[in-house]
Amino acid sequence: MKMDDMVIISVDDHISEPPDMFEKHLQGDALATAPQFHTTADGANYWTYQGMTMTSVGLNAVVGRVPEEYGMEPQSLEQVRKGCYDPRARLDDMNANGIAASLNFGSIGGFDGSRCFHMAPDKDLALIHLRAYNDWHIKDWCATDPDRFIACALLPTWDMDATVAEIERVAAMGCTSVTLTENPTKIGLPSIHNEYWEPMWKALAENDITICLHIGSGNAAPHASLETPIEAWISTMPMSIAVGAADWLQLSALQRYPDLKIILSESGIGWVPYFLERSDFAHERHKAWTNSGFEGTKPSEVFRKHFMTCFIDDAFGLKNLEDLGEDMVAYECDYPHSDCLWPEVPEWLWDSVQGLTDTRIDKITHLNAMRMLNFNPFKHHKREELTVGALRAKAAADGVDVTPISTGGAAPLAEGEAKRPVTSGDIMAMMKKQAEVA
Amino acid sequence: MKMDDMVIISVDDHISEPPDMFEKHLQGDALATAPQFHTTADGANYWTYQGMTMTSVGLNAVVGRVPEEYGMEPQSLEQVRKGCYDPRARLDDMNANGIAASLNFGSIGGFDGSRCFHMAPDKDLALIHLRAYNDWHIKDWCATDPDRFIACALLPTWDMDATVAEIERVAAMGCTSVTLTENPTKIGLPSIHNEYWEPMWKALAENDITICLHIGSGNAAPHASLETPIEAWISTMPMSIAVGAADWLQLSALQRYPDLKIILSESGIGWVPYFLERSDFAHERHKAWTNSGFEGTKPSEVFRKHFMTCFIDDAFGLKNLEDLGEDMVAYECDYPHSDCLWPEVPEWLWDSVQGLTDTRIDKITHLNAMRMLNFNPFKHHKREELTVGALRAKAAADGVDVTPISTGGAAPLAEGEAKRPVTSGDIMAMMKKQAEVA
Repeated sequence: MKMDDMVIISVDDHISEPPDMFEKHLQGDALATAPQFHTTADGANYWTYQGMTMTSVGLNAVVGRVPEEYGMEPQSLEQVRKGCYDPRARLDDMNANGIAASLNFGSIGGFDGSRCFHMAPDKDLALIHLRAYNDWHIKDWCATDPDRFIACALLPTWDMDATVAEIERVAAMGCTSVTLTENPTKIGLPSIHNEYWEPMWKALAENDITICLHIGSGNAAPHASLETPIEAWISTMPMSIAVGAADWLQLSALQRYPDLKIILSESGIGWVPYFLERSDFAHERHKAWTNSGFEGTKPSEVFRKHFMTCFIDDAFGLKNLEDLGEDMVAYECDYPHSDCLWPEVPEWLWDSVQGLTDTRIDKITHLNAMRMLNFNPFKHHKREELTVGALRAKAAADGVDVTPISTGGAAPLAEGEAKRPVTSGDIMAMMKKQAEVA
Repeated sequence: MKMDDMVIISVDDHISEPPDMFEKHLQGDALATAPQFHTTADGANYWTYQGMTMTSVGLNAVVGRVPEEYGMEPQSLEQVRKGCYDPRARLDDMNANGIAASLNFGSIGGFDGSRCFHMAPDKDLALIHLRAYNDWHIKDWCATDPDRFIACALLPTWDMDATVAEIERVAAMGCTSVTLTENPTKIGLPSIHNEYWEPMWKALAENDITICLHIGSGNAAPHASLETPIEAWISTMPMSIAVGAADWLQLSALQRYPDLKIILSESGIGWVPYFLERSDFAHERHKAWTNSGFEGTKPSEVFRKHFMTCFIDDAFGLKNLEDLGEDMVAYECDYPHSDCLWPEVPEWLWDSVQGLTDTRIDKITHLNAMRMLNFNPFKHHKREELTVGALRAKAAADGVDVTPISTGGAAPLAEGEAKRPVTSGDIMAMMKKQAEVA
């Protein structure tokens, strides 16, 4: 295999929702009460919904910028690449990056909708608007090319009847995944170990729907202190999902629903073999008093059967693919966030798969994602049309411009302030200020 | 090499402090106001100090029990092995386990003293008693056999002048390490990035004193929910130090004091190569705006120069020793806590070092610990007297009894309650109840 022959599916990207998203899917009062897009006198965008205010473009949508501005927070859709909010422009950017297909999480409601619909006081309205959100995601965004966008729906988990109904509704539209908080207790719902969730597990299993748990959607990714240089937080953020991974690994529903599938989005992979070995040790060493429910299997076996982990750039993990399980690892791009290697993903990825067989390269670049997400990009496209080489040739023919740009935004240090390490406190202050602008 | 030829130093064990610890080191008012040991009518032990109450035996001092009782919390010194509080009995237990030397953390004040002396309202008294604590640790516990106990002092970090004085005082007594919270902001002190700490870095570097940061001494080891089976927490607890590791890796004092040495106690090792790779990625990708202070070096280089990580049982980490750095990994026993493999450490360890050269086995079993802690167990003992085989022969000759015992204690489930998975909530309730007994 050559770099240009890879077919790359990204199982974790992001959308900055466009202003008109609800217009085609709602009318009358339902449209009037839907989340509303606004622009301040200074040009900053934001959304309002049921008394709440939400920033528009989503955390750190800085793809395509000069590196000096990765830490600056875009305040309007004008400061981000069009591919953040326009699916046709996104396809162009995917082509330039050699990405065959992409699963996307939203921004205004958080990765799982919990910051918008779950917090809304009027849950009848929230259900109407969450459904419209899914309609837009599936019928507008993904339908732009259903072979190249993998649908991932929100669920109204504050109501289990509505959740089951929504699972069946989106499944009928061809959607094969949902995004959930990795820790529902953080939004006031029962823990995943509570019987509250039983109808959802059943409906997900029966409809062959995969659960995506994105880092930062529940358990904290802690900053040690406000004075800690921000690189510390960047480096530990993916691994913060270990708390959620351990929690979900104990889920007894995995024993009752052997087909339940879970993707740990933006998890990284290199720490996972340690985590599995440690989970096995903890179980073997403590099961005499913990009464945990692994019923003769090892935690690592349960994990390798149900969980897929994802990587952006993770040479150590790929070197140890056998300890991870070669069927449960997938690539992710994280467009348009600052870790995203756009438009150079193929170069980075090719470099890190050098020790692997072609079979394994195919698994981690697309086959595992296809199987875990019950997704087929080759319905209307031949394989050779979706390779890195073919997509980039198309981008070149279409004149997709990938030149790094400078578009500004909120900055972590004050203008004119002497150069010093940017801290967690600086970033939190920047985010707070930005929220106040909105 | 054979299993019996290994020389094993453990860089992380624990003491349940004996009732008479302050008597030889204080008198008069100073003794009368020192932490006091008590026994309830039911036989439970506890300590009081300046209005605070502390449980006596320390978290989970269950070594030597039957596995069914690993989750039961000892309430008195009568329920734990004598080796928890008596240094001569500890040497017997080390012999039976083939352990040549051991570094110990205390219990009543937390691993770093912060739960006792740092919380005390009268800091003049706290300084007197902290110093007496160090006197006892160095002159009583460690002096029982200074070739086999590695001293590790507490520091009065609420006062930098007193801290510098105490560093110099314990260094003069031959102590070569101190234990600190991994996150001082949790006890109301400035972050490690604050200039407040400058005198301490200087004094530690000048006196060649190594810093030990024990998991759970600062940053949280989170429970996902109260309903989460406790095995989840057990499995993620060591890795919770990643937040602290990332914080300390950014410490600018490491650039100013090239000899500063840090041990991440009970960290585990298998996740560390991922963490280093991720830290390098975060730095390379973001340095254009983070202004972080690595001055041309990689974070992983700084880590491998200054930080030692430790393992209890960690085959994946040892398999990847080259990615860790073979000079910065050490064994730890964790006696008397429930992960401790006593009295079978040599068997477990030997099994996991099978892929390593004799040189590397020597490094991770004792040479790295000796170098990092400036400690020499061979001053009064020949090497062949401190091997697994020699120590176990001595234990056998001395008749050290290692038969698993049942001694009870507080239990996570109510008596007669049906068998079900023990949860985080159960353990927290057990600890709360135990604190109320005290």
